Amino acid sequence: MQYRRLGKSGLQLSALSFGAWVTFGKQVDRTQARELLALAHARGVNFFDNAEIYNHGVAEEVMGDVLADLRFPRDSYCVSSKVFFGSAVNPLPTQRGLSRKHVIEACHQAMQRLRVDYLDLYFCHRADPETPMEETVAAMDTLIRQGKVLYWGTSEWSADEIHEAHRVARENHMYAPVMEQPEYNLLHRQRVEVEYAPLYDAYGMGTTIWSPLASGLLSGKYNNGVPPDSRLAQAGFEWLRDSLLGEGLDKRIGKVRALKTIADDLGVSQVQLALAWCLLNPHVSTVMLGASRLEQLEHNLGAMDVLPRLDAAVAQRIEQAMAG
Amino acid sequence: MQYRRLGKSGLQLSALSFGAWVTFGKQVDRTQARELLALAHARGVNFFDNAEIYNHGVAEEVMGDVLADLRFPRDSYCVSSKVFFGSAVNPLPTQRGLSRKHVIEACHQAMQRLRVDYLDLYFCHRADPETPMEETVAAMDTLIRQGKVLYWGTSEWSADEIHEAHRVARENHMYAPVMEQPEYNLLHRQRVEVEYAPLYDAYGMGTTIWSPLASGLLSGKYNNGVPPDSRLAQAGFEWLRDSLLGEGLDKRIGKVRALKTIADDLGVSQVQLALAWCLLNPHVSTVMLGASRLEQLEHNLGAMDVLPRLDAAVAQRIEQAMAG
Amino acid sequence: MQYRRLGKSGLQLSALSFGAWVTFGKQVDRTQARELLALAHARGVNFFDNAEIYNHGVAEEVMGDVLADLRFPRDSYCVSSKVFFGSAVNPLPTQRGLSRKHVIEACHQAMQRLRVDYLDLYFCHRADPETPMEETVAAMDTLIRQGKVLYWGTSEWSADEIHEAHRVARENHMYAPVMEQPEYNLLHRQRVEVEYAPLYDAYGMGTTIWSPLASGLLSGKYNNGVPPDSRLAQAGFEWLRDSLLGEGLDKRIGKVRALKTIADDLGVSQVQLALAWCLLNPHVSTVMLGASRLEQLEHNLGAMDVLPRLDAAVAQRIEQAMAG
Amino acid sequence: MQYRRLGKSGLQLSALSFGAWVTFGKQVDRTQARELLALAHARGVNFFDNAEIYNHGVAEEVMGDVLADLRFPRDSYCVSSKVFFGSAVNPLPTQRGLSRKHVIEACHQAMQRLRVDYLDLYFCHRADPETPMEETVAAMDTLIRQGKVLYWGTSEWSADEIHEAHRVARENHMYAPVMEQPEYNLLHRQRVEVEYAPLYDAYGMGTTIWSPLASGLLSGKYNNGVPPDSRLAQAGFEWLRDSLLGEGLDKRIGKVRALKTIADDLGVSQVQLALAWCLLNPHVSTVMLGASRLEQLEHNLGAMDVLPRLDAAVAQRIEQAMAG
Repeated sequence: MQYRRLGKSGLQLSALSFGAWVTFGKQVDRTQARELLALAHARGVNFFDNAEIYNHGVAEEVMGDVLADLRFPRDSYCVSSKVFFGSAVNPLPTQRGLSRKHVIEACHQAMQRLRVDYLDLYFCHRADPETPMEETVAAMDTLIRQGKVLYWGTSEWSADEIHEAHRVARENHMYAPVMEQPEYNLLHRQRVEVEYAPLYDAYGMGTTIWSPLASGLLSGKYNNGVPPDSRLAQAGFEWLRDSLLGEGLDKRIGKVRALKTIADDLGVSQVQLALAWCLLNPHVSTVMLGASRLEQLEHNLGAMDVLPRLDAAVAQRIEQAMAG
Repeated sequence: MQYRRLGKSGLQLSALSFGAWVTFGKQVDRTQARELLALAHARGVNFFDNAEIYNHGVAEEVMGDVLADLRFPRDSYCVSSKVFFGSAVNPLPTQRGLSRKHVIEACHQAMQRLRVDYLDLYFCHRADPETPMEETVAAMDTLIRQGKVLYWGTSEWSADEIHEAHRVARENHMYAPVMEQPEYNLLHRQRVEVEYAPLYDAYGMGTTIWSPLASGLLSGKYNNGVPPDSRLAQAGFEWLRDSLLGEGLDKRIGKVRALKTIADDLGVSQVQLALAWCLLNPHVSTVMLGASRLEQLEHNLGAMDVLPRLDAAVAQRIEQAMAG
Repeated sequence: MQYRRLGKSGLQLSALSFGAWVTFGKQVDRTQARELLALAHARGVNFFDNAEIYNHGVAEEVMGDVLADLRFPRDSYCVSSKVFFGSAVNPLPTQRGLSRKHVIEACHQAMQRLRVDYLDLYFCHRADPETPMEETVAAMDTLIRQGKVLYWGTSEWSADEIHEAHRVARENHMYAPVMEQPEYNLLHRQRVEVEYAPLYDAYGMGTTIWSPLASGLLSGKYNNGVPPDSRLAQAGFEWLRDSLLGEGLDKRIGKVRALKTIADDLGVSQVQLALAWCLLNPHVSTVMLGASRLEQLEHNLGAMDVLPRLDAAVAQRIEQAMAG
Repeated sequence: MQYRRLGKSGLQLSALSFGAWVTFGKQVDRTQARELLALAHARGVNFFDNAEIYNHGVAEEVMGDVLADLRFPRDSYCVSSKVFFGSAVNPLPTQRGLSRKHVIEACHQAMQRLRVDYLDLYFCHRADPETPMEETVAAMDTLIRQGKVLYWGTSEWSADEIHEAHRVARENHMYAPVMEQPEYNLLHRQRVEVEYAPLYDAYGMGTTIWSPLASGLLSGKYNNGVPPDSRLAQAGFEWLRDSLLGEGLDKRIGKVRALKTIADDLGVSQVQLALAWCLLNPHVSTVMLGASRLEQLEHNLGAMDVLPRLDAAVAQRIEQAMAG
């Protein structure tokens, strides 16, 4: 495994990490989760990502049970949670958002579900226009000083919102956010590459990217529509299906097929190529994998072997293919 | 239920909330308190107000027992206490006021009586000219940083005192007060509408208002004097009776009767009209109800249904009626 | 009992308070200590003074046992400790002084001996030229923020040292000292009345004064030398005997006799007169009594009845008598 | 024993102290460690140095067991740990360095191994170019405010790095490092005497020096090569052997022999002379001894008796001998 600093921070995350989103507690039961985390950890993965909203707290409970069972040394991995959407199916107004009350209560709840004494990373899952920035930054600052959180960050915030968080932190001598968790993949690049560009130098911001395969689109599995056993066919994922497979789909599938040609030429898998490509961006601290099956995780981890083959010429070919 | 932000803060309180003042542990025993809180919570009320002085700590004990019994999720409600008067019948000099010692000890005592690990809201029940503002603000700041209090505020402070608290907080990088708990009703408007006017924008101050029915005067129940079974007839409430039913009473009862006419024209209850009227003021974060009987609470909660009917014309009629 | 604010702070101490110095654990055993504290508390005394050095920790142990036994409400009294001399008979270099290590460890030890969760008042018993002011102020600040100390102060520091402590606190946003514990009595006035004069307004400093009877000299009991059963006749008190009964003794005894005449004229006891006189100084927050017998404490508490009789004329007579 | 302030701090360390490096858990088992610590403490040694890397945590475990067994009063000694290298044989990226995660986790682990509630001294064992200074200083600041560390410092940092740490601490109102742990002996003087020269006044920096005998070279035991039972002959110490006995060895042995002549002239041991010489430097707060045998420790502690004999003339002779 390769390790990268989380931005300019001293925390070194594995280049590939493991996200529990949409899988833990749904497709993935405790037994499977145990196998997945055991394999990931054995291969050097040291970041397990989670959030209060993932299966309404169940993803954290499953991960907590499995971590307790596997007895990894606490200093051998990082675990995260994210606050904003709440863990309840129909959260009350005090059970969601970035108020001091919810930021602190959600941290306590996540620690309990994950069975840890502190969260290594704690994200604001979205920005909350209904809470003043001062209140959220101060709540995060309190948690860090109390030892309940080591690093805090944001997820899918605009560059302006991140600037504002840093301004508030600096003026009040409070801890500033260290990382962002944005979507990033060959089909979704603008935010990480353009919008955030000034933030990397200014704040040393790191990124823990999600959806490196564009929810599977980059694997080619939706080239001919949504298979009935796919996640996108499940109830509750209509929004993702529409966003992924909606307008401009033909163009996107064209790019996916062009990528396949490059992968074939290199003699590597299309999935590994797409994952490895994310790591060409030096501002990507870690690429979060969302595997639900052991062979799938094994295969995805193989992206590290593909990475050295992505020289300037290959990168250029990919750019051209994506330019469509 | 409608929810409103507590001023500019991220905390969303129910527009109608529940106060334990003068009832819990007196007219209202544990069984009744349980029914009242259960109904309120079921209807979306998420703020239960209390104070060390309310029945000398007994109101908090009753509420604590009932909360423990009802097992509401801790993140589904907010509970408050207020410090100043002490909980003892004859408090010693160290058992009252806003000294660091009493602010901290009263917080610990309230948490114990209410059986919670932290107070969501903690008020200075009055200003204390015998304690420097720096000492009180610093004590509140300590409690917030320790996680024992989420938001602190004031009750019945002058605008000047609130300005001073903010100045001290800003200069010392300490947490500033977020809310006020003033009296507010159709017969008592000056402080909330005029004196505090500059504070809402300047500090984003929210208000949790008490006595929305002017201790019942607005319900019309004192139109013909004090009934013997009324709270005002009880020993210990002479001050309230005098203030409420003293000088200018005829004029006030005239206004109450005019309000009755408006309510009748709308086909709504006078009480609900008076409660709903408070919510027309955007600076009112929540209206605290003080019901002691289940039907009374049920009726008062109905004010939410009356609120949409208070259009500009009705509001104007009420203004004219109150102008006398 | 009369109560006075500790300087400008919000803490109100009884005008007469109780010090454990040289008595608890020596002349005064647990049974007697229990009677003394019970009487004092019943009469409204709310400050019990102690220090790590008093009988090498035993005075605090005795007081802690008695407080636990008497079950006074924790908010009905204040208890103090003082750090500097260490509690060991021959303290090691790490067991004394005002280093961060000793200030913090001595606080923990005093809390354990006194059986309390926090000290209301914590004094630096002397200034420590071997420790930078920054280190001591920071250690006190840490203890206050952790909730282990409510107010910190100094004892027998020079005005310059107190100025320096305030400067350091202000520049570093740390808690500043609130009170001094100086010697003060009719024969020892310079520091409290002259040296500290600028401090009362500048910092709102309060004083908890010790030795109001000049170790008994003002009671007249040493007018004819040291009785064999007196404290001054004990081993270990040579320094005090020398200081008290040394150079200029005749002049001092002359003053004591003049005081006796005034007391006789007023028909009050000389001791009560001397104690009450201290309270004429508005900068004296509390006068610490050091009684070892119940009747003695009872008698000394009677000083409160004498205080109202000290009008301007009497005060003037006392001044003249002391001017010799 | 003589005691010295740790720089300008109020902490007084014994002039000779005890380091566990390379011995505890290897040459020295629990029984021997117990005898060594008991002797050292009895002779007034009050600083026991350790580090996470020393025998990969075992040195701290042994010391913790022995301290628990010996029941020294906690305020009679200081214990340290150092963070950087990790305690694992092959530390993962999160298990080493000066990230917030590792600084905090290593502190918790050291407290557990050493069986103490706080570390008196906590060192950054090396500077970490992979972690921003802000992150490390903030982590140390958090530990100090939480009461888990009393003083933090550095080990083998460059003067520039120490300047930077102070700048960051000052700008952020955080605790600055108080001490350095550099190598210092007659053959290795540049850093302590020249590079650090501006730091002593600027920051009141103290030093806890290691290798006062240049890993034994100054004892003369390597004058004729490495004995097979020596530490330098062990696997894992090749780097030290090469550094010590490599290039320029003849010149160094010449100096060692010249020192022997001076020791013989004074009638003292060469080892004690070399140890005592370190204490001539007023910026040396304590000289750490690394004895593995009781007689050796006893002999080394005798350096205190030699110190008074090192007058200006002797010091001058030593300078000339070392000038070679």
